[in-house]
Amino acid sequence: MSSIFSKIIAGEIPSYKVAEDDRHLAFLDAMPLVEGHTLVIPKQETDLIFDLEADDFKELWAFAHSVANKMKVAYPGKRIAVAVVGLEVPHAHIHLIPISSMSDMNFANPRLTLSKEEYMAIQQHIVGA
Amino acid sequence: MSSIFSKIIAGEIPSYKVAEDDRHLAFLDAMPLVEGHTLVIPKQETDLIFDLEADDFKELWAFAHSVANKMKVAYPGKRIAVAVVGLEVPHAHIHLIPISSMSDMNFANPRLTLSKEEYMAIQQHIVGA
Repeated sequence: MSSIFSKIIAGEIPSYKVAEDDRHLAFLDAMPLVEGHTLVIPKQETDLIFDLEADDFKELWAFAHSVANKMKVAYPGKRIAVAVVGLEVPHAHIHLIPISSMSDMNFANPRLTLSKEEYMAIQQHIVGA
Repeated sequence: MSSIFSKIIAGEIPSYKVAEDDRHLAFLDAMPLVEGHTLVIPKQETDLIFDLEADDFKELWAFAHSVANKMKVAYPGKRIAVAVVGLEVPHAHIHLIPISSMSDMNFANPRLTLSKEEYMAIQQHIVGA
């Protein structure tokens, strides 16, 4: 069975994409901790990030770096925090989270509920940065 | 003024090292969230991880990958979570945290207080994995 992220890659489930190349995708988290919370994934389905081959692992991080550089411009007052948890969706993913304080990246926090229009505005804000 | 991590690199402050190469160091966090909580740093002092040059960034993650592979063996029942916060010590560092649940990586949690003997046992457990 393909992961929910594979369905997103295939376009079977809609998402707000902020960056994409042949092997990677970045899109807005559907349950964001804060505005701009983005997920970066390899298109090849792999459960755990450290199970990736060395080259694939490095390329995933290089792609995440390019996404984070966009986010730095989009959210100049924030730090772009990184988290990889590995206990949720069984498809390796990097959280990029624009934070103001350590507590912003507590995964036990309540998630934002955003409208489609709000998601589209955030998407444009990052893509256009 | 050099960061506390630069003092650790220089050996001016003691640490429990678990891996090292010419350009990177991994050592046990002095305020661990859980047993095995490890920090991975570039020896070159840089405040924010996304300010690293693309090649330096990729090599830092490749080194972290090798450390995480050791930790996977040392803590077979756990996931090796990743966090980069960027609000603490102004020297880019990757947290590698063996977790059983999402709540294990909440940075607001109380930290473990370990004896020197306990730190040395954890160090040997990872180095020997």
